[in-house]
Amino acid sequence: MLRERLQLVLNAPAFERTILVLIAVNAVTLGLETSPTAMAAFGNVLFVVDRTILAIFTLEIAARLFVDFRGFWRDPWRIFDFIVVGIALLPAAGSFSVLRAFRILRILRLISKVEAMRRVVSGLLSALSGIGSIVLLLGLIFYVFAVISTKLFAKDFPDWFGSIGESAYTLFQIMTLESWSMGIVRPVMEVHPFAWALFVPFIVATAFTVLNLFIGVIVDAMQSEHEAEARAERDAMMSETELILAEVKALRAEVAELRKGSQTA
Amino acid sequence: MLRERLQLVLNAPAFERTILVLIAVNAVTLGLETSPTAMAAFGNVLFVVDRTILAIFTLEIAARLFVDFRGFWRDPWRIFDFIVVGIALLPAAGSFSVLRAFRILRILRLISKVEAMRRVVSGLLSALSGIGSIVLLLGLIFYVFAVISTKLFAKDFPDWFGSIGESAYTLFQIMTLESWSMGIVRPVMEVHPFAWALFVPFIVATAFTVLNLFIGVIVDAMQSEHEAEARAERDAMMSETELILAEVKALRAEVAELRKGSQTA
Amino acid sequence: MLRERLQLVLNAPAFERTILVLIAVNAVTLGLETSPTAMAAFGNVLFVVDRTILAIFTLEIAARLFVDFRGFWRDPWRIFDFIVVGIALLPAAGSFSVLRAFRILRILRLISKVEAMRRVVSGLLSALSGIGSIVLLLGLIFYVFAVISTKLFAKDFPDWFGSIGESAYTLFQIMTLESWSMGIVRPVMEVHPFAWALFVPFIVATAFTVLNLFIGVIVDAMQSEHEAEARAERDAMMSETELILAEVKALRAEVAELRKGSQTA
Amino acid sequence: MLRERLQLVLNAPAFERTILVLIAVNAVTLGLETSPTAMAAFGNVLFVVDRTILAIFTLEIAARLFVDFRGFWRDPWRIFDFIVVGIALLPAAGSFSVLRAFRILRILRLISKVEAMRRVVSGLLSALSGIGSIVLLLGLIFYVFAVISTKLFAKDFPDWFGSIGESAYTLFQIMTLESWSMGIVRPVMEVHPFAWALFVPFIVATAFTVLNLFIGVIVDAMQSEHEAEARAERDAMMSETELILAEVKALRAEVAELRKGSQTA
Repeated sequence: MLRERLQLVLNAPAFERTILVLIAVNAVTLGLETSPTAMAAFGNVLFVVDRTILAIFTLEIAARLFVDFRGFWRDPWRIFDFIVVGIALLPAAGSFSVLRAFRILRILRLISKVEAMRRVVSGLLSALSGIGSIVLLLGLIFYVFAVISTKLFAKDFPDWFGSIGESAYTLFQIMTLESWSMGIVRPVMEVHPFAWALFVPFIVATAFTVLNLFIGVIVDAMQSEHEAEARAERDAMMSETELILAEVKALRAEVAELRKGSQTA
Repeated sequence: MLRERLQLVLNAPAFERTILVLIAVNAVTLGLETSPTAMAAFGNVLFVVDRTILAIFTLEIAARLFVDFRGFWRDPWRIFDFIVVGIALLPAAGSFSVLRAFRILRILRLISKVEAMRRVVSGLLSALSGIGSIVLLLGLIFYVFAVISTKLFAKDFPDWFGSIGESAYTLFQIMTLESWSMGIVRPVMEVHPFAWALFVPFIVATAFTVLNLFIGVIVDAMQSEHEAEARAERDAMMSETELILAEVKALRAEVAELRKGSQTA
Repeated sequence: MLRERLQLVLNAPAFERTILVLIAVNAVTLGLETSPTAMAAFGNVLFVVDRTILAIFTLEIAARLFVDFRGFWRDPWRIFDFIVVGIALLPAAGSFSVLRAFRILRILRLISKVEAMRRVVSGLLSALSGIGSIVLLLGLIFYVFAVISTKLFAKDFPDWFGSIGESAYTLFQIMTLESWSMGIVRPVMEVHPFAWALFVPFIVATAFTVLNLFIGVIVDAMQSEHEAEARAERDAMMSETELILAEVKALRAEVAELRKGSQTA
Repeated sequence: MLRERLQLVLNAPAFERTILVLIAVNAVTLGLETSPTAMAAFGNVLFVVDRTILAIFTLEIAARLFVDFRGFWRDPWRIFDFIVVGIALLPAAGSFSVLRAFRILRILRLISKVEAMRRVVSGLLSALSGIGSIVLLLGLIFYVFAVISTKLFAKDFPDWFGSIGESAYTLFQIMTLESWSMGIVRPVMEVHPFAWALFVPFIVATAFTVLNLFIGVIVDAMQSEHEAEARAERDAMMSETELILAEVKALRAEVAELRKGSQTA
């Protein structure tokens, strides 16, 4: 009885709208909290509003868990809500004070609440899944080049290539083409004159791989677009051809009839 | 009577051409005004020409308003003309002297006067409208990361992350990949060693979102292109199939006729 | 008589191959001329080879002009050959010594000699022609922003925005995103805090325009690709439908025959 | 007898899986070798594991060569395996110590072992082959600009344009837009004020050529995608039309029969 009532409330459009408004209000208050002037003027109000909204979010999720515990964990968007709200409930004292900065993640609930944005994110993720082997290949290229450059340059350039992790970060920077030559490769070439023979192929290889990753996403998007279109087109044509087929069949029946008639005659 | 006459003048091709020439002349004079040498040599002439052209533009727009007041405000290109010419009429004294630099916006009237350019701009804007939710998602990502980086780094790097606005600007710079590593993230990592765990995902997320924004525009452009083509193709095929259908129907009518004949025989 | 003989020689595959080999040899000798070591060792040989090849090229073009003077000026590739060889014949003494560096342009004749490369370049140029109004729009945006930034920043940053030309160069740099923030906009913002309100829209506007320029080229390439394909497909289908149509028509003729027969009977 | 047995072992799924696991283990040990801490703690173990895996790889390839010597050299992936394992067997003492860093290339065997990744790499390479003339054009542009900039700027900027090789590297950097203006062209322009007239066209030309290279790859990918689709579509339609054709033909036969009957009657 209580469950059904709660479910009705949780699914009511008015309730959904209220949550949306609270998310927007919370976005503003969490933004204002970064301003020392605003904090000095009405920091207490901001604090109270923030806590109240957090309490409402927590209650909402608890209610949803109570209404349909199993269904909750099957819906990835509900789990997403659970996590971003949960982060705000973690104790953020001492060395975890960094967590306080991540409370703003709460407003990402906007994505799970607005149909159009949910579709965009789903589209992004589904595109990703279709290009898994390209991502794997990119990872392999990164690992191989990170090991090689660490072995070759760790001694002379410990800040950039000191460990595999640091090399991977530097290679990521080189892949994005940021200061790759003036900032990294030219200085390295002063010690190892043939460093370009490692980094130029790396740039070309990753550029080409990323290009193919992009093409994979584009072709995927086009294909699904085009398939729907082609199906509609085919259907339109099919119905026309089927009309002819029916007509021809009817004709044949008539001729058969005629033949029977002329034979009996 | 006066209105009709004015309308005839305003719509005359010769008048449109005159305005086009005046826009081009004005582009040159406003360009020359930036050169101290040109200003010293014939600054007065430039000033007179500029004022005259501005007066003509103002009169033209006033005339259009007089001829068809309601229609004027319904056409976005007329409103665009009104604004860019209006900027030049604002008083540009004292603290508004900056407005003087924006008088050149007047030559953007070229867009509203040339059909081909108007079509390009309309295309750009219509493409934008179709990708609203991706732009919204990008905005959300920016806001969330701006709040987080302000909270984490405002104290140590006030120039880059001092407020949400400054963080958003820095994040825009990072999104364009300009000096993101050598200029921003490496210095930040010297104080906060795990800063890369915030910025590398930000770069990947925005790159992927912008990619999808681009794909949205491309697919949109292709689709409208392809639809027109597919329709033409289908029509060509349809006419062929319809020919067959008509032929078969005629045949059936003839057979029916024949059957009637053989039955009566 | 002489003309016909010359024409036969000029069109002979062996002659074309010889010219190709000479272009390749000249590419190597002109490259070697940049090396002081090579020049010291056998500079005289390089000089003689270069002069000889230039003489052959000049004679070839003179012969082509003699054989068909009018046809020569109608073929853009021949004019291209004429220009790149002509540059090497200009006197390069004194203040024109810079022209000597441009002699290497001669090896661009490779493009006009190899069918596959000529097709690539033609493709590039034809793509350009289809996007004329977007290029014009980009030019307009550049001019407007160049005038505005010159007016606003010429006094404080004469190196970057001293004149319209310098502003246009700086804006081109900003459009390519090279050091736009750390190198240009942040320093400008220290004097004019709202400079970002000019440059960020400029970046977004040009990025969007260039994107559309690219899409124009892509859609154009796809369309011509797709049209050829669609025509082939349609033709295959048409022939099939036409077979049916012919069959049905023959059938109708037979039925008509039959009807005539049954009426006479 | 021995050969057939060996072949069975080499083709057994369990054997393939074992090799895959060894590649993964080797990736980890070769990664750990870059860490001084790990080397100090259990460097000997890493060394033994690495040598053992290398021995197994060598034996595997030797076995494959023994089983089918000719077939081995016909499969490019086997040759790839041969090379990357062979690199690790080269003596890496003295001036060849650099080779030690390239042992990690061994883990690229993952590509030749996993079907999905092999397909990705084949796709990349086949895409490349289709755009040969664009790559050639890009090479030509690079060579011409490298010679010109060496001739013009070698004296004043020996670090950047000292030789054709150095110029080509600098031009590659300019093509990737890295520090092209603030780092290279602005300093050059202080000595040669018209340097922008060389580099801005170079940037536009290479950007346009690379764009066309990308479009070539995209159109190629789309086309093969689309062709398969179009064929399926056409087949579906064809079968329908063929049904009609068969029906019409049967009808015609029946009418012919009918006519014969009415004639004999």
